[in-house]
Amino acid sequence: MNEPTLEAALAAFPPDEYPSFPSAEFDQRVEAARRVMRTIELDALLVTSEANFRYMTGYILQAPVQIARPRYFVLPLAGTPCAIVPRTNVDGLEQTTWLRDIRSWVAPCPEDDGVSLVLEALQQAGSRFGRIGAEIGAEARLGMPVLDYLRLADRLGPSRFVDGEAVFGLVRMVKSPAEVDRIRRIAQIVSASFDALPQLLKIGDTEWSACRRMQLDLVLRGAHRTPHLTGVSGPGGYTNINTGPTARLFESGSVLTIDAGCCFDNYWCDFNRNFGFGAVRSEPARSYAALHAATEAGLRATRPGARTRGLFAAMAGSLSAWGAPGGTVGRMGHGIGLLAPEPPSINAADDTVLEPGMVLTLEPSLSFTVDGERRIMAHEENLVVTADGYELLSTRTPPEMPVIA
Amino acid sequence: MNEPTLEAALAAFPPDEYPSFPSAEFDQRVEAARRVMRTIELDALLVTSEANFRYMTGYILQAPVQIARPRYFVLPLAGTPCAIVPRTNVDGLEQTTWLRDIRSWVAPCPEDDGVSLVLEALQQAGSRFGRIGAEIGAEARLGMPVLDYLRLADRLGPSRFVDGEAVFGLVRMVKSPAEVDRIRRIAQIVSASFDALPQLLKIGDTEWSACRRMQLDLVLRGAHRTPHLTGVSGPGGYTNINTGPTARLFESGSVLTIDAGCCFDNYWCDFNRNFGFGAVRSEPARSYAALHAATEAGLRATRPGARTRGLFAAMAGSLSAWGAPGGTVGRMGHGIGLLAPEPPSINAADDTVLEPGMVLTLEPSLSFTVDGERRIMAHEENLVVTADGYELLSTRTPPEMPVIA
Repeated sequence: MNEPTLEAALAAFPPDEYPSFPSAEFDQRVEAARRVMRTIELDALLVTSEANFRYMTGYILQAPVQIARPRYFVLPLAGTPCAIVPRTNVDGLEQTTWLRDIRSWVAPCPEDDGVSLVLEALQQAGSRFGRIGAEIGAEARLGMPVLDYLRLADRLGPSRFVDGEAVFGLVRMVKSPAEVDRIRRIAQIVSASFDALPQLLKIGDTEWSACRRMQLDLVLRGAHRTPHLTGVSGPGGYTNINTGPTARLFESGSVLTIDAGCCFDNYWCDFNRNFGFGAVRSEPARSYAALHAATEAGLRATRPGARTRGLFAAMAGSLSAWGAPGGTVGRMGHGIGLLAPEPPSINAADDTVLEPGMVLTLEPSLSFTVDGERRIMAHEENLVVTADGYELLSTRTPPEMPVIA
Repeated sequence: MNEPTLEAALAAFPPDEYPSFPSAEFDQRVEAARRVMRTIELDALLVTSEANFRYMTGYILQAPVQIARPRYFVLPLAGTPCAIVPRTNVDGLEQTTWLRDIRSWVAPCPEDDGVSLVLEALQQAGSRFGRIGAEIGAEARLGMPVLDYLRLADRLGPSRFVDGEAVFGLVRMVKSPAEVDRIRRIAQIVSASFDALPQLLKIGDTEWSACRRMQLDLVLRGAHRTPHLTGVSGPGGYTNINTGPTARLFESGSVLTIDAGCCFDNYWCDFNRNFGFGAVRSEPARSYAALHAATEAGLRATRPGARTRGLFAAMAGSLSAWGAPGGTVGRMGHGIGLLAPEPPSINAADDTVLEPGMVLTLEPSLSFTVDGERRIMAHEENLVVTADGYELLSTRTPPEMPVIA
C-alpha cells in the first residue's frame, strides 16, 4: 500500500463549490420539513442549533460554538424562509447559501440579541395552528440563551412554542445520496487508517501516541476534521471507552480500542476498532468473536421496514447465544449524520422503522472478566439502509482481533 | 528551521496523567464559584454545558456533542458536589476526576433522562435563598433539553432557577497559570505554523489546499485539535472572514486571511494572519499597517485595572487617527479559554475590569475599498493580562504584510 500523502488527498477530494449541495437538495429539505410541520400542525419552525441551522441553510461557517452570536433560521409553513444572523454573517450567507431573505443585527447586543427580529419573523408566519416548533424536546439542544427563549415565548401570543424536534428527527434521519456520499468518504478514510494502524504501533507505545499517529494519518488521507479519537486500553481488555488517550503503555496482553468520530464536509462517521498486543488472553479473543457474530446478526436484520428494536433484539440474541452478557450502555447503536450520535437509538424500546437512506452505526457491546476483573468490549460498523438491505460504509472489521506483535 | 515531525511533538508534549490539573486547582475553582454564589445568593449551581462541566470536573471525555446522554454537575453552596451522568460515564469519572459523589442512570431513557436524580441533588442543597443558578443567561447554552429544564423548574419549589452565568463568567474569565500554559502552548504552535506557511503556499493554490496544508502542519507541531481553520481570500482583500476555505484560487494581488481556532488539552487559541500574493495593492498594505498600529494601541492599554471598553477605545481611536473606518463587527476582541470566543467582549460598552490571568484576543478590524469595492481586514493577537501589563501568547505578526511571490 502506498504511504498516504496530503497531495494525493487534495487531488482525490477537491474542494466544493458553494453551496456544497445542489439547491434542489435544499428545496427537498424544506419540503420534507414542511410535510412534517403540516402533520403535527406547526405554523413555523424556529431553528437555532448548529447542526439544524447548517442542515437547512448549508452555511459554510466552521465555528462550532458562537455563544456570543446566535444564528436563527425561521421556516414558515408557507412563504419565504429567512435567516436572522449577526451582521458579520450576512456576506457569508449571501455568497454560500440559497437564502434570499437575510435579516441581521450588530452582535453581540445583550439588550436584544436578535430576539425582536425573530419575534417579527415568527409573527409573519401567521397563527393558523397557534403552534411554533422549537428545539426543546428529547435529544434537542437550543442554540440560544434560555432566558431569550422564554422572553420570546412570553411575547408570541396567540401562538406558543411546542416540541419541534420531530421535524428534524424525521427529516434528518433519512439522508440524501449526497449526504451518504460524504459519510461514505469519511468512513472509508477512517477504515483505511485503521487498517494501516498496526504498522504504526508497537508494545511500549502509549494510547496517546497511538491516537496522535492515527490523527496525522487521517489528515494525510483527507479527513477534514478529527474531533473525536478516543483510545483506551488495559491488560486483557478495557473497562470503559471514554478515559483516553492517556499515558497508559501497551504491554503484551493489552487490548486497545480506538473510537473514531471524524468528519468530511461536516458529516460524521463513528466507529471503533479493537487491537491486541503480544500474547492476547482467550477471554478478549472470544469476546471479539462474539461481537463480530452479533454485528453479523444485526446486519442480517437490517432492511427497509425492519425496526430499530428488531436490530437490537438480533444483536442481543446473538450475544445471549454466545453466553455473553449484553452491555449496560442502554443501546447498541444510533444514527449518524451532521452529529454523532443522532437519532434513532438502537435499543429495546425504539420503534423507528428503517427506510432507505438512514445511516446507522451498529454497536453491540458486552462485558467479561479477566482474572476476576470486569472488562468490556464494543464493536462498531457504519451502514446505510438501501432499497433491499444495507451497504456497509466502513470496511468490515476482520473476524479475528488484529494482534500487534 | 527544522521540518516539524510528529515524533518531536510527542516528545515535546508528553501525555498528561489524569486529572490533568492538580486537585488543588479544582478546589480553587469550586471555592471561586462558591464565592460568587454567596454574593449572588445561590443555594446551588446546575451545570450542564460541555465547557462548564469540563471546567468543574476535569472530565477527559472528548465527545463534543452527546445529545442523547446529558451530563449534570450539581455544586451546592456547602456540602459535597456531585455528578449525575449516564452509567457509561461512571468509570471514566471515577478514574480521571476528583469527584467522589457520582450518581448515574442507564441512558438514553426518554422517560427520565436523569431529571429526577438532578431534582434530588438540587433539593439536597437546601433552599436558604430559594435560588438555583442555571446556564440560562446571555452567552450561556443549556446542555439539556429545554422541556426537561422546564419540568425541573416546575418541581423545584420552594426554589427557582435564576441566571447563574455570572458564576462562570467571573470564575472562568481569570485563568490559572496551568490554564494559561495550555493556551500559550497552542498559541505558540499556531504561531510557528503561520510563520512556516508562506513556504507552503504559492500563487495558483486554493484557500482549500492552504488550510489543509496548515492543518497537517499543526498536527505535526503538536496541536491536539484543529476545529476551526477558516481561510478567505480575494483580489485586493476579502469581504468577510467566514466563507472559506473554498476552491478560490490565489492570484497576484490576492489577500488571504486564515483564522485559526485550535486546541491543546481543550483550551483554545484564536487568531488570524494575513498574507499577500504577488503584486499587492497599496490599499490592503495600508490597512494592514493601520491594524498593526491599532493592535499596538490596544496592547499599550492592556494592564490590570483597565477596562475592556478602554481597550476598544484605544484601538478604535488608533484606527480613526489613520482615517480608517472601524469595523462593523460589534467588537474588537473577546476572551478565550475552554471556548473561543468566551466572555468578555471588547466593545464600546463592556465594562469588565482586567485582572491578571485574563486571556484575550485583541481583534481590530476595518473596511476599505479597492476599485470601489468594499473589503475588510482583521488582525488578531492573543495575550494574557499579567501583574504589570500583558504577555503576548501569539508571536506578534510582522509590521508589514508577508507577501508570497
